[in-house]
Amino acid sequence: MITLEQTIAAILPCDPGAAAEARAHQDRLTKPRGALGALEEVAVRLAGAAAVSPPPIPAPAALAIFAADHGVHAQGVSPWPQEVTQQMVGNFLAGGAVANAFAAQVGATVRVVDVGVAADLPPAPGLTVSKVAYGTADLSRGPAMTVEQAVAALEAGIAVARELVEQGARCLVTGDMGIANTTASAALVSAFTGRDAAEVTGRGTGVDDETLARKVEVVRRALRVNGLDGGAGAVPALETLAAVGGLEHAAIAGFVLGGASLRVPVILDGVIAGSAALAAAALAPAAVDHCVAGHRSAEPGHALALAHLGLRPLVELELRLGEGTGGLLAHPLVCAAARVMHEVATFDSAGVSEKEA
Amino acid sequence: MITLEQTIAAILPCDPGAAAEARAHQDRLTKPRGALGALEEVAVRLAGAAAVSPPPIPAPAALAIFAADHGVHAQGVSPWPQEVTQQMVGNFLAGGAVANAFAAQVGATVRVVDVGVAADLPPAPGLTVSKVAYGTADLSRGPAMTVEQAVAALEAGIAVARELVEQGARCLVTGDMGIANTTASAALVSAFTGRDAAEVTGRGTGVDDETLARKVEVVRRALRVNGLDGGAGAVPALETLAAVGGLEHAAIAGFVLGGASLRVPVILDGVIAGSAALAAAALAPAAVDHCVAGHRSAEPGHALALAHLGLRPLVELELRLGEGTGGLLAHPLVCAAARVMHEVATFDSAGVSEKEA
Repeated sequence: MITLEQTIAAILPCDPGAAAEARAHQDRLTKPRGALGALEEVAVRLAGAAAVSPPPIPAPAALAIFAADHGVHAQGVSPWPQEVTQQMVGNFLAGGAVANAFAAQVGATVRVVDVGVAADLPPAPGLTVSKVAYGTADLSRGPAMTVEQAVAALEAGIAVARELVEQGARCLVTGDMGIANTTASAALVSAFTGRDAAEVTGRGTGVDDETLARKVEVVRRALRVNGLDGGAGAVPALETLAAVGGLEHAAIAGFVLGGASLRVPVILDGVIAGSAALAAAALAPAAVDHCVAGHRSAEPGHALALAHLGLRPLVELELRLGEGTGGLLAHPLVCAAARVMHEVATFDSAGVSEKEA
Repeated sequence: MITLEQTIAAILPCDPGAAAEARAHQDRLTKPRGALGALEEVAVRLAGAAAVSPPPIPAPAALAIFAADHGVHAQGVSPWPQEVTQQMVGNFLAGGAVANAFAAQVGATVRVVDVGVAADLPPAPGLTVSKVAYGTADLSRGPAMTVEQAVAALEAGIAVARELVEQGARCLVTGDMGIANTTASAALVSAFTGRDAAEVTGRGTGVDDETLARKVEVVRRALRVNGLDGGAGAVPALETLAAVGGLEHAAIAGFVLGGASLRVPVILDGVIAGSAALAAAALAPAAVDHCVAGHRSAEPGHALALAHLGLRPLVELELRLGEGTGGLLAHPLVCAAARVMHEVATFDSAGVSEKEA
């Protein structure tokens, strides 16, 4: 068992030499300089993260969907009954969810990880049970988790990342399932960026105006009750994560750290992943160098989280589903960016004339 | 040989029944309503275009890169020598261009079609020679093509679409190669939308301020010289296309019409395809129902063309390469949208509780 501490110690930042080499190679390829826009930055980022240019093509991908329940559901922040978390786990395992269809489209495997579902789940192929608790406590009344629980969930995420890479994954995609988890995400984004609850809280999977107002109030109360309203960074990262995160947020943060420690790129899905990545970045800033933002969701907190992390999303189609769906859609784009570095001819090798000065 | 006229006559618009059925099915799937954002509209669009719900998964894809040269190159509108058109054709055929790498990533075949390269190309596997002329005449001094040439290029595009579908393609992706072709595109966008030359003309594959100013002047002159400055629609579509289009623009317009006539979706690449699609839409408005906008390029005329066509681009990563690269990147997204309709469980079938009212 690799610990959180060992994992953090193993994370290396972007290698500037490899990144520079990637940039120089990019400019020799048979295309106008910069013509691949944001994908050129992705290729350079992958090379820096892998410390080699051209960077490995990040395939195959493995999606891990971390599932957990939330005590804050009792505050009426979601129109969905809590048991949908476990029902959707069943749907993932049966192959019937959107994440399964998207994974099939991009050739990714799907692993479901129970880190905190509020029920005992029957064993099934594809399901890893690393249950830390039967859901979190209500973050609007006190800490959602103890620090020990948060560490256990982080280490569960690390273990899943290591196992998937051992089984051949060369790209990790974050996924989540947890009714009410956009409330915890909003609280995390507020705590880590210092933004007000009203700026970071959105409609999640679809709440009305009244529920949205209640959700903002719940997030604001959570920050106050847990002493997190003193500005970003005032409380250590682990305590912050434990206070207002979900078990799946902690596990995703661990998954990010695990991938980063192995120099395997991690594609972040939506606001759940973005808020979890804020925790990972606070624990180990270099972890961000190994992340690619898969998409930008409709949640306002997501854009703020990505801006804070300095990440540009690849897909912007107003998805607001979670499960890893936005991350999966970005996988072919990330692969395409890397593939160019391996397969495209240079002006010299192809005998193509260059632009006149 | 199927003629332009026969092809236009065969194009049917979106089937509203199938589109409505797709929308209703979408709402029964195990996800919050609307949670797939713009991809839900893509699925509905595909169903309407195919007149069946769920719509066929549009795979495999075939990319056709239509190559041609431009008399307007003599006006100094591009920093690239004209022979780069033929050199890049060689690069496509050797598999060394970005379009080849992206096609490999999404499992698409690549066909290169010479409709007007200013040189005789040696025969090669993957190359179709349908040369209409050795490049167009200079559009800033008179019509770029005769109407007969435009029709010949349109019919070459139709023939390629039909052949690729016959060979098994279930999605067509437009590609182009032609040094100076963003100048012709700008002129087409200006002519078909009525926008001023300065609004529609961009830096193409990278021109400096001085060249950009010259390019705007050339586009403005082209419209005036060809009597196209009387507002959108004042001159018939075929004459407009012939006056300021390129041979590859005409062929791409034919390719779009050919795909539409067979109810096979066409993914449009960048501004070359967008401007060609304006011509196709002017010839047969229902053709647009069969198009998906793959991406939005950095060219200002592209956004205007897409707005005029009522199409929303799927990928927005500031690509400005052409070749079909942006269209190819969108292919997995389009497939994912369709796949959801086939593979995702409904709330009933999966036993997942619905949102509370």
